[in-house]
Amino acid sequence: MKTASLQGVLAPVVTPFTADLRPDSARLVRQCRWLVDQDVGLAVFGTNSEGNSLSLREKRDLLDALVDADLPAARMMPGTGTCALPDTVELTRHAVARGCAGVLMLPPFYYSDVTDDGLFASYAEVIERVGDRALRIYLYHIPQVSGVPIRLALIERLLARYPGTVAGIKDSSGDFANTKAMLERFQPQGFDVYCGSESLLLATLRDGGAGCISATANVNPRAIARLAREWRSAEADAQQAALGVVRQVFAQYPMIAALKEAVARFAHDDAWRTLRPPLLPLAPEQRASLRASLDALAFDMTGLAE
Amino acid sequence: MKTASLQGVLAPVVTPFTADLRPDSARLVRQCRWLVDQDVGLAVFGTNSEGNSLSLREKRDLLDALVDADLPAARMMPGTGTCALPDTVELTRHAVARGCAGVLMLPPFYYSDVTDDGLFASYAEVIERVGDRALRIYLYHIPQVSGVPIRLALIERLLARYPGTVAGIKDSSGDFANTKAMLERFQPQGFDVYCGSESLLLATLRDGGAGCISATANVNPRAIARLAREWRSAEADAQQAALGVVRQVFAQYPMIAALKEAVARFAHDDAWRTLRPPLLPLAPEQRASLRASLDALAFDMTGLAE
Repeated sequence: MKTASLQGVLAPVVTPFTADLRPDSARLVRQCRWLVDQDVGLAVFGTNSEGNSLSLREKRDLLDALVDADLPAARMMPGTGTCALPDTVELTRHAVARGCAGVLMLPPFYYSDVTDDGLFASYAEVIERVGDRALRIYLYHIPQVSGVPIRLALIERLLARYPGTVAGIKDSSGDFANTKAMLERFQPQGFDVYCGSESLLLATLRDGGAGCISATANVNPRAIARLAREWRSAEADAQQAALGVVRQVFAQYPMIAALKEAVARFAHDDAWRTLRPPLLPLAPEQRASLRASLDALAFDMTGLAE
Repeated sequence: MKTASLQGVLAPVVTPFTADLRPDSARLVRQCRWLVDQDVGLAVFGTNSEGNSLSLREKRDLLDALVDADLPAARMMPGTGTCALPDTVELTRHAVARGCAGVLMLPPFYYSDVTDDGLFASYAEVIERVGDRALRIYLYHIPQVSGVPIRLALIERLLARYPGTVAGIKDSSGDFANTKAMLERFQPQGFDVYCGSESLLLATLRDGGAGCISATANVNPRAIARLAREWRSAEADAQQAALGVVRQVFAQYPMIAALKEAVARFAHDDAWRTLRPPLLPLAPEQRASLRASLDALAFDMTGLAE
């Protein structure tokens, strides 16, 4: 049950805030337009979007702003999984109503000692309550942050009960053996597997995966999307290696702050440096160091500045 | 800056749900009335209340139901800390407006690799935005669940900046050395320290603490509250030992499910067995085993059945 419009690369789009820490929908619209122009889809409200630092209302309003601005809902996979069943249902229902091709759904993540029975019940309740055949859920496996792994046995049960609706997974574990196991067991049923970093993009695509949903697609979208298109070419390994060089720079800093710093710099827009607590911008010395590292690579974000 | 009405024992009150998983305010009101009659305060929306499985609206409505039913707001310390700043601000403001003597505030808990600077900024934003001198915040240190410890250095900074408003802490780490360090450093400034289990109640009170906020205060409130009143008596050690026997039974099961099972049994009310996913009720064999263990103790919950 492939969702063609979501194949390839998506960015967990960083969320801009105003000086008084409100989400800034106008800046988000501009950023999303630039990303789509680079051939990157919109996994808004992800981990790197500070998605869980936003209220339900803020997420609804931002999604409305994007769709109302004619950004393509077919390229959207908003994060809709929260700790609270009614919030997850409401946001998911809204995403489907606005035409989003899929949703990326964290399990409820406050309690970490939960059973697969409990997680199955949680996803099942959401699916039944949303009650829409257009719903496409991408599970979100990021145990190092959520504390709640999505195990193979759970995927198997969900796929058996909700084929078509349970459409894929983002594997942010960084453990390619796990990604590979998901691909081997579930890809033949049309289950789309995305790796959580472009450092595994080529390997994922060669094993039949759908693409990647990666933090650094916020800053290096064109090159990552190019590899997703050209992965069968002779240059693929060299492209993959080049992506790794950029990724490695950002990985040395708190990721979200570093992404926003790069956007602020290349968009010539200081407002992008704001994060919502508990996250904070880079310290001045980190900022200088990131700048120097990017300069050494002659790194650029073409077309970002208006 | 002691809040006299909150000294002693509070229960993170278990939240009843209807068959279709909506919060059941009428049952919650009855349960809270019984707890107050046992001399136990109301830490609603805590970890054992499935507080983070409730939406903001549900928590507002439940709090309204309790206050409107004339339950004493002076005995209430609702959990108001969420992942998202605007939700935490709104719920905290509402709790203050409804007269709650304090609030128990988790740090934002999605990201676990946060700095003390980020946590300070988070609490500071909430305090500034609520902007009410009646606000009394009790910090919530439960790193094994939240993933976000409240370290001594953070408490020190918060107390220095917001004396009076930052009123105390619940230490659910289970590490009495940590509780003791908090007592030694901050109790002299009037900072109230609660342990997270009645198994440490006597030790906490002897070292100058305010009391405990404990899961099992939902089921064994009278005896726990008695120790909090009589801890200077010759029977205190024997009382503490007796509390441990009951606690030990419940600790063998998933705690929230076991608490609800006991309430269901002694209130003769099956509806109490419902949990909201991802949590689930006890399995039949666990239920039988808990029942047998409680029978062996001649355990009872006097006055719970109407």
